Amino acid sequence: MNTQNPTLIPGFHGVRETLIQGRVSIREIWIATGKKPGRIRDILRIAEEHDIPVFYKEVSKLSRLLPDVAHQGIVAVAEEFSYADLNQVIETSLQDREHAVLIVADHITDEGNLGALIRTAAFFGVHGLIIPGDRSARVSARILKRSSSGYLHLPIAKVVNIGRTLDLLVKRGFWIIGASGEASTSIYSFDWGRDLALVLGNEKSGLSIPARKRCHETVSIPSSGPVESLNVSVSGGIILSEIVRQRG
Amino acid sequence: MNTQNPTLIPGFHGVRETLIQGRVSIREIWIATGKKPGRIRDILRIAEEHDIPVFYKEVSKLSRLLPDVAHQGIVAVAEEFSYADLNQVIETSLQDREHAVLIVADHITDEGNLGALIRTAAFFGVHGLIIPGDRSARVSARILKRSSSGYLHLPIAKVVNIGRTLDLLVKRGFWIIGASGEASTSIYSFDWGRDLALVLGNEKSGLSIPARKRCHETVSIPSSGPVESLNVSVSGGIILSEIVRQRG
Repeated sequence: MNTQNPTLIPGFHGVRETLIQGRVSIREIWIATGKKPGRIRDILRIAEEHDIPVFYKEVSKLSRLLPDVAHQGIVAVAEEFSYADLNQVIETSLQDREHAVLIVADHITDEGNLGALIRTAAFFGVHGLIIPGDRSARVSARILKRSSSGYLHLPIAKVVNIGRTLDLLVKRGFWIIGASGEASTSIYSFDWGRDLALVLGNEKSGLSIPARKRCHETVSIPSSGPVESLNVSVSGGIILSEIVRQRG
Repeated sequence: MNTQNPTLIPGFHGVRETLIQGRVSIREIWIATGKKPGRIRDILRIAEEHDIPVFYKEVSKLSRLLPDVAHQGIVAVAEEFSYADLNQVIETSLQDREHAVLIVADHITDEGNLGALIRTAAFFGVHGLIIPGDRSARVSARILKRSSSGYLHLPIAKVVNIGRTLDLLVKRGFWIIGASGEASTSIYSFDWGRDLALVLGNEKSGLSIPARKRCHETVSIPSSGPVESLNVSVSGGIILSEIVRQRG
């Protein structure tokens, strides 16, 4: 573990779920001094069972380490966030009885957006999320919190190069579908019944050129009002909903 | 105007759109000292045309007044945010050739969520948003920013009592449809072809009792994964998308 920069999982619900689910290993648990034992008794019991040490810290220290995050006086220090292996994600998605759905986050830089997208993807049972290592938000405490424990259920793979990753997906039979406000094909008329990688672009600049070049199709959500664009987690949710609806 | 607590509109795009659209009156414009004239020349020209005074302020002062908001060194001081009149919103929505769609934000307390919901509602051309005066986020600088100028196009009415407001809507022929994770009717099977008020509940507690009691129907977005709930702006977007799709 990189102790300079550990992954901190804040909040009662997040800590509890992470302990129970066991996908992310917990190295230690921090509790704010003066925290009432009521609600955390359950967590202390699980910590004891798994032999995880508990440290008490000043609440001000927790807040300094987790600015702008509602940590509720309880934080788990995780071993480094364990990204999933890309090939493993692809194989698993193709073995499902349903068509595969992967999401490629093409340089989404806002942590709140990436966290909300993880939550939304987990809600719809997406098989995996692919993020680039550079020019992208990384999985941080804030993202884990915003994802409402979605990260526990959604495999997340980090890749070096989005273009080469899409090439690999094409080779494995995936359709590469990009979301773009300017696309003429509506999400309602597109036939989503196939193995697909849905590419969602950067908040400002949209799809990157390497991604756009590899899209078999780009689709848009028809706007009925004067505002031209949606938040990326909202458009992601709308497209996933349409995929689920069509597949019945 | 309440000068103790003016509505501040941050950011280049927000200030420019507000000036052009003219729905919110601007009292003055603040620009960070040292801001390069390039991009704001356009704004200065419109300000001159409308005889709006421009003041230069230290960037640190702007940041203190607008914590956690990317103001880009430009802020418009608006006359108090002008909420729309509820009766006017209802009349206008019923005069549209399309069936009316109003959104009732049943005590949404997070500013980010309310801002994102305003953006989403404006994207889908919703006729109006109704928010309660108490126990709800109010229209603030942060919400205006998060809404990506959506507030310029979406009438927002503030009401004293959600229950009585829904009673009035029922009297005017609206169907009251609540979004609830536990509802057995799916958003995909519900027939959205009617005048309707879509009620979205609080982030934690869901629909309030007065709202729930008045719903003709509650609907849910079928989950296909292990995560049980969605962010309120995401679920709002998904339901609006389904309404638009059905109305074709």
